[in-house]
Amino acid sequence: MTLDGGFVTVAWADGAELACYGLWLAESCAGLGLDPVTRESTLDPADLPHPDALVAADVGDDGRLVLRWRLVGEAGPDTVTEVHPGWLRHVADGRHQPGSALPDPERWTAASLGGEPPSLDGAAILDDDRTLLAWLDHLIRYGLGRLRNTPATDAFLPELIRRIGPIRATNFGELFTVRARLADTGGEGADSTAYTGLRLGQHTDLPTRETPPGFQFLHCLENTVAGGASRMTDGLTVVDELRRRYPADHEALTTLRWSFLNRAVDEEHRWAGPIIDHASDGDPLPLTLRAFYPVRAFPLMDPTDQPRAYAALRRFSEVAHDERFQLSSPFRPGDLVGFDNRRILHGRDAYQPGAGSRVLQGCYLDHDDLYSRFRVLTRRVKS
Amino acid sequence: MTLDGGFVTVAWADGAELACYGLWLAESCAGLGLDPVTRESTLDPADLPHPDALVAADVGDDGRLVLRWRLVGEAGPDTVTEVHPGWLRHVADGRHQPGSALPDPERWTAASLGGEPPSLDGAAILDDDRTLLAWLDHLIRYGLGRLRNTPATDAFLPELIRRIGPIRATNFGELFTVRARLADTGGEGADSTAYTGLRLGQHTDLPTRETPPGFQFLHCLENTVAGGASRMTDGLTVVDELRRRYPADHEALTTLRWSFLNRAVDEEHRWAGPIIDHASDGDPLPLTLRAFYPVRAFPLMDPTDQPRAYAALRRFSEVAHDERFQLSSPFRPGDLVGFDNRRILHGRDAYQPGAGSRVLQGCYLDHDDLYSRFRVLTRRVKS
Repeated sequence: MTLDGGFVTVAWADGAELACYGLWLAESCAGLGLDPVTRESTLDPADLPHPDALVAADVGDDGRLVLRWRLVGEAGPDTVTEVHPGWLRHVADGRHQPGSALPDPERWTAASLGGEPPSLDGAAILDDDRTLLAWLDHLIRYGLGRLRNTPATDAFLPELIRRIGPIRATNFGELFTVRARLADTGGEGADSTAYTGLRLGQHTDLPTRETPPGFQFLHCLENTVAGGASRMTDGLTVVDELRRRYPADHEALTTLRWSFLNRAVDEEHRWAGPIIDHASDGDPLPLTLRAFYPVRAFPLMDPTDQPRAYAALRRFSEVAHDERFQLSSPFRPGDLVGFDNRRILHGRDAYQPGAGSRVLQGCYLDHDDLYSRFRVLTRRVKS
Repeated sequence: MTLDGGFVTVAWADGAELACYGLWLAESCAGLGLDPVTRESTLDPADLPHPDALVAADVGDDGRLVLRWRLVGEAGPDTVTEVHPGWLRHVADGRHQPGSALPDPERWTAASLGGEPPSLDGAAILDDDRTLLAWLDHLIRYGLGRLRNTPATDAFLPELIRRIGPIRATNFGELFTVRARLADTGGEGADSTAYTGLRLGQHTDLPTRETPPGFQFLHCLENTVAGGASRMTDGLTVVDELRRRYPADHEALTTLRWSFLNRAVDEEHRWAGPIIDHASDGDPLPLTLRAFYPVRAFPLMDPTDQPRAYAALRRFSEVAHDERFQLSSPFRPGDLVGFDNRRILHGRDAYQPGAGSRVLQGCYLDHDDLYSRFRVLTRRVKS
């Protein structure tokens, strides 16, 4: 352990090392910055010590870092504070990073998953944290996870999702029901393709929002129709394929911006961005695919870029519908499919709405809240 | 009107002009791409015509654009479709842009606002779309708007906000109550500084989330304490001041990244980003300030950058608390203050929690939903 130039460098016996800036240590000390109950800093940055105030650092008997401060304006002896070594080791191991404790995404194709979504028996999931954690692991790792044999009741989906976090409500409500609305049989009629028996191409929901819903859940309550199979494609695989085989299209899809518009009597949502939207720092995640042609409104780009932008859209659609990448699976009552709505493209085959019923209940949940539950359950299951 | 190189250029009598790429027109035509009921395109990009398919364009008697297509694989005569001129003019006027129909942000100081938040009488707002629209205008323009004389009841805030859009629920619930929780008088005790009588420095809520809540609302139900005045500062003014007077600090605040962490028994939220986070394209909005030191966890940067990062934090705090920029106003029962939680810094003066009661009910709403309601009310009030 050394103090040099305002930095304390802590070294562990196993070779781990961390350079700690003095003012960060001040924020991390009970007695200066840290509230001992909430483990949060209470120091407004304006009240931080002078950068030269840290005059000595030692390791105490129990591994705590013992720091001596000469605070400006305070008479009398130096102030001595301690930092818990667990927090320093947490940072040294990179466990303070947002993605730490989350599984890394694994790209998939139909073949790599054996032709079926990763599946778990969900009959007892409400009482079983290990099954819930395993399902959340699938949802983060593959962007996709299916529960089978859940109770096919209205109440099940909201009860399960609220165990994870607060449902993300939209103008479609907290919960929505996907079924064919047949005006000619007394229904209210369809105001969206979702509420017909028509095929839905591979898409993501709500690209008209700044941050589209992170996860979507569809719970099958009834299904007696022929057709209507669910289609799922890993957007990370699609993006990789485009980057590798069609780099010019990939470039157009990641840089050229479009406006998105959903205009109805009571709503008018708008956003703008590229079709493939990576986080600005080039990480693969968070990825947001804005792939829903019904609400793509106008190319926000120079006219000379529009021909290649449209050619790239066509290529994107081809790759997104490539059978090698696409899972196709029918919905059974009691199936509950969750997927990352910003990463995974989803769609369905056409079906004949008059000859049976097909009822899915759905809702959304943001990434933040699912990741938080994953971290908490990981802690609990470990301890 | 000309057709050249796949583009139709439409010119209006008043000088407006729009270059329309043929495939965008295909998506905008009933009979090819457009569903006449939802006014949305039903054409998967894979099914778009060949770029050379558009062979003629004319203006019809009623101003409609009449297009003639020679579709590959279709025998027989050309396909003729029409595009409504209103949609073309909408785009030519830039009204398809996400920010169109929204007021531009106006930066403010305490003096420019006359020392008080922009205020409206809210007694009748539930039955008055014009007052609601005027309040939403304040919330977008200044990032801040106060209603006075609203009913100081529990039910009022959720009823009003649900008229705008779905409340954004967090792990604190749909609604939260800000009051001092006094363990020594039978309360449950404080688990956050918010639930004490302590001063709260200028901050934004929930920087641990990828997209922190867009708007926050605080409705005063009771207030008999001395102190506890609300403090508000325009983050756009703070950013401008930093850019102008302290460019090195501004640079550090917009580029150097920090981790943010909120770890509790049932939650573990994490995110990372700079303190001043502009949209990637350099627009002033959407701006996200991540300014809440209790959950700022670690500097995710090279150690050599940390001294200037901390110096910049101190500068940010000084400017955020500059009295010239800060509004200070007491809460009266029936006051309802809304503000852009990503733009506006908010805080409060200390108060003595034993000597009276101070009860605020709060909730969040995302930018998307407030902007949507603004656009819809603008249409209604105009018509």
